[in-house]
Amino acid sequence: MATAKSTKLGVIGAGGVGSATAYASMLRGVADEIVIYDIAAELAEAEGLDIAHGSMFASEAKVSGGGDIEILRDCDLVIVTAGARQKPGQPRLELVGANVKIFEAMLPQVMEVAPNAILMIVTNPCDVLAVVAQKITGLPTERCFASGTVLDSSRLRWLIANKAGVSIKNVHANVIGEHGDSEFPVWSAANIGMVPLDEWTSEDGERVFTDEVKDELATQAMRAAYKIIEGKGSTNYAIGISGARIAEAILKGQDAVLNVATQIRGKYGIEGEAAVSLPSVVNREGVVRVLDVPMSDEEIERLRKSAGEIQMTLESAGYGDK
Amino acid sequence: MATAKSTKLGVIGAGGVGSATAYASMLRGVADEIVIYDIAAELAEAEGLDIAHGSMFASEAKVSGGGDIEILRDCDLVIVTAGARQKPGQPRLELVGANVKIFEAMLPQVMEVAPNAILMIVTNPCDVLAVVAQKITGLPTERCFASGTVLDSSRLRWLIANKAGVSIKNVHANVIGEHGDSEFPVWSAANIGMVPLDEWTSEDGERVFTDEVKDELATQAMRAAYKIIEGKGSTNYAIGISGARIAEAILKGQDAVLNVATQIRGKYGIEGEAAVSLPSVVNREGVVRVLDVPMSDEEIERLRKSAGEIQMTLESAGYGDK
Amino acid sequence: MATAKSTKLGVIGAGGVGSATAYASMLRGVADEIVIYDIAAELAEAEGLDIAHGSMFASEAKVSGGGDIEILRDCDLVIVTAGARQKPGQPRLELVGANVKIFEAMLPQVMEVAPNAILMIVTNPCDVLAVVAQKITGLPTERCFASGTVLDSSRLRWLIANKAGVSIKNVHANVIGEHGDSEFPVWSAANIGMVPLDEWTSEDGERVFTDEVKDELATQAMRAAYKIIEGKGSTNYAIGISGARIAEAILKGQDAVLNVATQIRGKYGIEGEAAVSLPSVVNREGVVRVLDVPMSDEEIERLRKSAGEIQMTLESAGYGDK
Amino acid sequence: MATAKSTKLGVIGAGGVGSATAYASMLRGVADEIVIYDIAAELAEAEGLDIAHGSMFASEAKVSGGGDIEILRDCDLVIVTAGARQKPGQPRLELVGANVKIFEAMLPQVMEVAPNAILMIVTNPCDVLAVVAQKITGLPTERCFASGTVLDSSRLRWLIANKAGVSIKNVHANVIGEHGDSEFPVWSAANIGMVPLDEWTSEDGERVFTDEVKDELATQAMRAAYKIIEGKGSTNYAIGISGARIAEAILKGQDAVLNVATQIRGKYGIEGEAAVSLPSVVNREGVVRVLDVPMSDEEIERLRKSAGEIQMTLESAGYGDK
Repeated sequence: MATAKSTKLGVIGAGGVGSATAYASMLRGVADEIVIYDIAAELAEAEGLDIAHGSMFASEAKVSGGGDIEILRDCDLVIVTAGARQKPGQPRLELVGANVKIFEAMLPQVMEVAPNAILMIVTNPCDVLAVVAQKITGLPTERCFASGTVLDSSRLRWLIANKAGVSIKNVHANVIGEHGDSEFPVWSAANIGMVPLDEWTSEDGERVFTDEVKDELATQAMRAAYKIIEGKGSTNYAIGISGARIAEAILKGQDAVLNVATQIRGKYGIEGEAAVSLPSVVNREGVVRVLDVPMSDEEIERLRKSAGEIQMTLESAGYGDK
Repeated sequence: MATAKSTKLGVIGAGGVGSATAYASMLRGVADEIVIYDIAAELAEAEGLDIAHGSMFASEAKVSGGGDIEILRDCDLVIVTAGARQKPGQPRLELVGANVKIFEAMLPQVMEVAPNAILMIVTNPCDVLAVVAQKITGLPTERCFASGTVLDSSRLRWLIANKAGVSIKNVHANVIGEHGDSEFPVWSAANIGMVPLDEWTSEDGERVFTDEVKDELATQAMRAAYKIIEGKGSTNYAIGISGARIAEAILKGQDAVLNVATQIRGKYGIEGEAAVSLPSVVNREGVVRVLDVPMSDEEIERLRKSAGEIQMTLESAGYGDK
Repeated sequence: MATAKSTKLGVIGAGGVGSATAYASMLRGVADEIVIYDIAAELAEAEGLDIAHGSMFASEAKVSGGGDIEILRDCDLVIVTAGARQKPGQPRLELVGANVKIFEAMLPQVMEVAPNAILMIVTNPCDVLAVVAQKITGLPTERCFASGTVLDSSRLRWLIANKAGVSIKNVHANVIGEHGDSEFPVWSAANIGMVPLDEWTSEDGERVFTDEVKDELATQAMRAAYKIIEGKGSTNYAIGISGARIAEAILKGQDAVLNVATQIRGKYGIEGEAAVSLPSVVNREGVVRVLDVPMSDEEIERLRKSAGEIQMTLESAGYGDK
Repeated sequence: MATAKSTKLGVIGAGGVGSATAYASMLRGVADEIVIYDIAAELAEAEGLDIAHGSMFASEAKVSGGGDIEILRDCDLVIVTAGARQKPGQPRLELVGANVKIFEAMLPQVMEVAPNAILMIVTNPCDVLAVVAQKITGLPTERCFASGTVLDSSRLRWLIANKAGVSIKNVHANVIGEHGDSEFPVWSAANIGMVPLDEWTSEDGERVFTDEVKDELATQAMRAAYKIIEGKGSTNYAIGISGARIAEAILKGQDAVLNVATQIRGKYGIEGEAAVSLPSVVNREGVVRVLDVPMSDEEIERLRKSAGEIQMTLESAGYGDK
């Protein structure tokens, strides 16, 4: 009779994103066991081994990788990173076809070995694929969601923190909507400490975050992925930490507010089943609540348009609402 | 030739607060060396030893305690917790006389052995004594401040987090003014995630933080110390973590926003030299900036009155402005 | 349907040791929920509240305290620190009578609300009381044990590390036997890095750990508690970290080797049911294995004598073997 | 006047190893600032940005990358990972020529901007290149060393821990000599808890680590890199953590014992200037002491041969003793 069940995190996909997610999860001590599954069995094994070899200097998570779906048995959370990868300049929404096929083949097998798992989709377009995955698996919507704009929000906060000269942990700003070109920051609620962003001044009293500056930062945050892809071919480290952070909120039951993407069911007058990134409360049950963030009319309009982008892709992929 | 100077934290006072501050600092890995000084040499030695004995299972900070002022030599930061202790029901401002005398005798010796140290006053009334300490030592005001309402804000956030069912790390609310009976929360800026506190609803759509609830929470946060003192004779653990948190922001140069108390020099029309708790940016230089938080007229009025309480005590202690 | 069961740690006794154990456990993130139970309900509540108020700056464990046994419901691990406290100069084994009575009244209630809990006894004499607790509760011996000489070993390693000038984490030395006056270090196996203690030299080639030095260190390690009790009236911080460390090994299933005390059943020719501290493997099942440490004949003889001390006290307390 | 100097870690090389080292260092909070330098400026920038974007969820280290040597200014520690990469099946010692050329061009520039930095060489063959780097820079030998067999030892301990069913942190075993094909474990001193490896038994009393098992484990530990390279093309994650761990020991002054490689100057009768991996004490001054590990005659013989391999390569690279 074992006391206190151990926690098991599964990562599907042993590419750059999947392995960085497992690596960051091990370094943070997110779960007691971490497994990497990939049909490229030797790759998954090699990544698992390479991470496990560092466990002496980090948390004591058991880490392994392999090509047999059995490795995912009884996972509490499965993070899906497998799929075709975004190419330089390519809009995120174009990747969908190939990845839908992969999901249709793979997810039923996953649910067979890990029927109680929560599913988090990182594969892009993650908000579209979260809905696809939910429909394939039949999971309740709160247990099948996407990493959404968690990373985009982190990028925006980093830019603001640098400009203001304060710790990123005191910057509060969220990017919402599609994890893609139509996403946008909710500037109306952004603040540093208790100071609204619009009222933040430099030491000599000048307003720092003018409309031009805000536009520039929004663009930089959204374009960051493209810049990194140009420089190194792909992004993996920041999305790896983001995935590990969401996993922690789930596996440790933290009721943390994170910009993940779930089906929001009529909020803000948004029709259809699109999964849209909004500040949401995350714990051991999954995404238990999407917050009702006050927004300007203009922001609500942008949100609807952004949701519409996701919806359109869903439909063209054959996963729109009947 | 040593690479990378080590960091040294001094704690004055080996009572419940001082020892908990050193203990929490060791467990968090706040500094490379931690020393406890107290004229009760055997007590300081015993506390130092008791904490050091646990270092095998925590950070590798070197910890020791003693009654010779030399132990504080070359500290980067000195946290002052020594002094007479608040009794049940006693207003914080009444403690001042005895503690001023202790400071006058002790601080010149401290500055002799640790001339480059930043001073943080935790001894109550901490905002009054921070000014007293600054005048005794002649330190720049940004290098001599009080722990202020960092803990009071943490208590308020804990109450809000419990009521809303979200992580305390997503609750943003600050208690400002005097660390004492005239302190108050800046409700106008409080929020959970991006949702203003006033618009936060329960699952069934009811507003949670009504005026009555807010009054009740503000009172509970302010009275929390009294309740704990009734139950255990004093408070020490939460103030110990708060002190360790501020020390971390300083010694690691984090530019963190914390509700410490410094002399605010004319902000909000406040005359005199009172140190007042307001959201402030803290790093290796000390308190480098007090934020200009937008407040309602009523809040500004309360802040002035609260600052007036501190000023009055300063004057009656013979430390008012000439 | 919740994913990944949360972990719950109960601490019985809101005195210095119990509250420091809860505090260190919160700061380390040992469990998802931490509760303090004490018949002095107001004290337990106050300690719980004081620790909970610091949670903003530490792990997100839910912490509370109270006087209703229900607070312990469904704990995975219960650490018992309640009982009469050791007085200066008093041998640990003399405390037993009063504490046996407390255990007989309390433990059946504990097992009723937390039937699957592992029990760890910290109350002294902990090795005697672990057997008493096991007999009262009928728990398997691997699920009812004492914190033993985990702290004593930590103290010895700290002394050795200081003398050798190396990190305490590279010092390997264990104190075994009774957690009390008859305990002793297994010098024959002690080492620093890969260097046996007897062969460790100073920079100029002189042997550092001579027999005189070893005797002196062994005495200091054993007497440390008395010295701290003289200086501050009791010990609490290091035993608090030690308790938190053992709790972590259990709740995270680490298979860690720690000098806890369990009934060793015939090992080293030791008769009776005494719980004796020896390097043991600890995980979610409790103490799953006591290691067969090679020792000199003289060391085995000392171990038997030390076990005999525990056995004698057990018998005089009416808990010897029938 | 800033209190408490910040710590700055430089990583040269933005490939898999360099970026994983920076990533792990950020996640662990090893330094206040982390910079990545590579002549491939866009790559270095992209890796720096990708890591920095995750800082919201990790330590608050400032992270950046670039192609201007100025980015390394005033580093306290520089980890060199740049150079040609080991190919599947290729002995580590064959890489040396190309990497010597890179070092001759690069290191003088590094020392110009970071004259007080400690240099740690990870580029393979790291033990050969540490000597080359020391001769190019003229640094004291204790301030210019290689990561050596820190990772190899970690791999061996992981294999032993798995076989014994105990935490890797209780397994003590070191791989010494060349970081390459002639390395070997010092079995004579290996132990688990206090139990010598040779006396460790399974639950049913059988000796686990027979000569065959030990040979098998030694081979696996040594061949691990080749296996991972076959599966994923290179190794990066475990060496990244290892580098971060050594950096932590240096920048936090921990006096930790680690199997780094320095010039051992006549120890064990080894002639020449080869840097050889042996348990060594590491702190803010660099490698301050190489331990005198007792070994069997056969082990000393193997160590000499292994050192000879390094010496031969040094000579063929034109960096032998006069």
